[in-house]
Amino acid sequence: MHYPEPISRLIDSFMKLPGIGPKTAARLAFHVLTMKEDTVSTFAKALVDAKRNLMYCSQCGHITDIDPCHICSDKQRDVSTICVVQDPKDVIAMEKMRDYQGLYHVLHGAISPMDGVGPEDINVASLLGRLHDERVQELILATNPTIEGEATAMYISRLVKPSGIRTTRIAHGLPVGGDLEYADEVTLSKALEGRREL
Amino acid sequence: MHYPEPISRLIDSFMKLPGIGPKTAARLAFHVLTMKEDTVSTFAKALVDAKRNLMYCSQCGHITDIDPCHICSDKQRDVSTICVVQDPKDVIAMEKMRDYQGLYHVLHGAISPMDGVGPEDINVASLLGRLHDERVQELILATNPTIEGEATAMYISRLVKPSGIRTTRIAHGLPVGGDLEYADEVTLSKALEGRREL
Repeated sequence: MHYPEPISRLIDSFMKLPGIGPKTAARLAFHVLTMKEDTVSTFAKALVDAKRNLMYCSQCGHITDIDPCHICSDKQRDVSTICVVQDPKDVIAMEKMRDYQGLYHVLHGAISPMDGVGPEDINVASLLGRLHDERVQELILATNPTIEGEATAMYISRLVKPSGIRTTRIAHGLPVGGDLEYADEVTLSKALEGRREL
Repeated sequence: MHYPEPISRLIDSFMKLPGIGPKTAARLAFHVLTMKEDTVSTFAKALVDAKRNLMYCSQCGHITDIDPCHICSDKQRDVSTICVVQDPKDVIAMEKMRDYQGLYHVLHGAISPMDGVGPEDINVASLLGRLHDERVQELILATNPTIEGEATAMYISRLVKPSGIRTTRIAHGLPVGGDLEYADEVTLSKALEGRREL
């Protein structure tokens, strides 16, 4: 025997989380034993509740506890702009910024032929459906600046162009606070290419 | 709003674990949403069960689901030797080795005047009680090779000496597979001091 059975089951559960190996899982499990009983039951309840009560918004695909989500059902938001992102976490990053007042569309992935992910595997069809709304004037493509993200942005842009809706891509360049000396060539080349009049 | 409420509660719970900050907690919480519902409920159950069903063994202080623990109640073990460790995790490390057949005693800490931890704050009194059993012949002090661990070993050794029971300390020296070049001075000095005839 190594661990008493209840703790080895808890270790197994922790190990199912990303980036948590056997040693970290054991450390976390032993920490749980030192926590107050009501903190542990709150944790357990939070796990089950999050899984049960959260779903994807039927309009934008963002994670939500009500459908349509808080953003889609907010009358204050500017319905003329839709920002297309790969992941619900990207919506949260954008919302933290507090500068963007439009709507979102979450693709849940990016086109990646290498991994067998085609346009039909990501949430593109429903995006096209949303464009029938005549109030939509701009589509901001905020997929990641990776090969897959660029390909996806390009694909959507070509698909949408004929409808006359403006499609834009977020800027790539040096991160604020970054150092020119340490920037990679591709970022530097993008920064130069995207230079603007002062 | 940033996160939907059920997920922000889950993030809060993850952040109560050691070494998990807001970003990791968010990553773990979002991962939970992609897990199967029964995996999540198994996780939740494991948390509550571990907290509810585990206790400290009334004899050795090791973590256990039955009292006395599997080791203390195992008739095959050699009752003449007790190995004193700081933490239940140390018992598990020793058991993994499979070389030790004696019993354990878990102190749940080490004497540390700097942190206000005195001998009465760790599980020493019950250790002295166990030494009244005449079958006990040797006490192996396997506290950590730190200032606190050494002080604790020294303290227990002095307390036990008059009873005539043999007290030993585990060896300190170069770890197997280690490199002499990279060993610190204290370890090297301990290794030299503890040299043995070949």
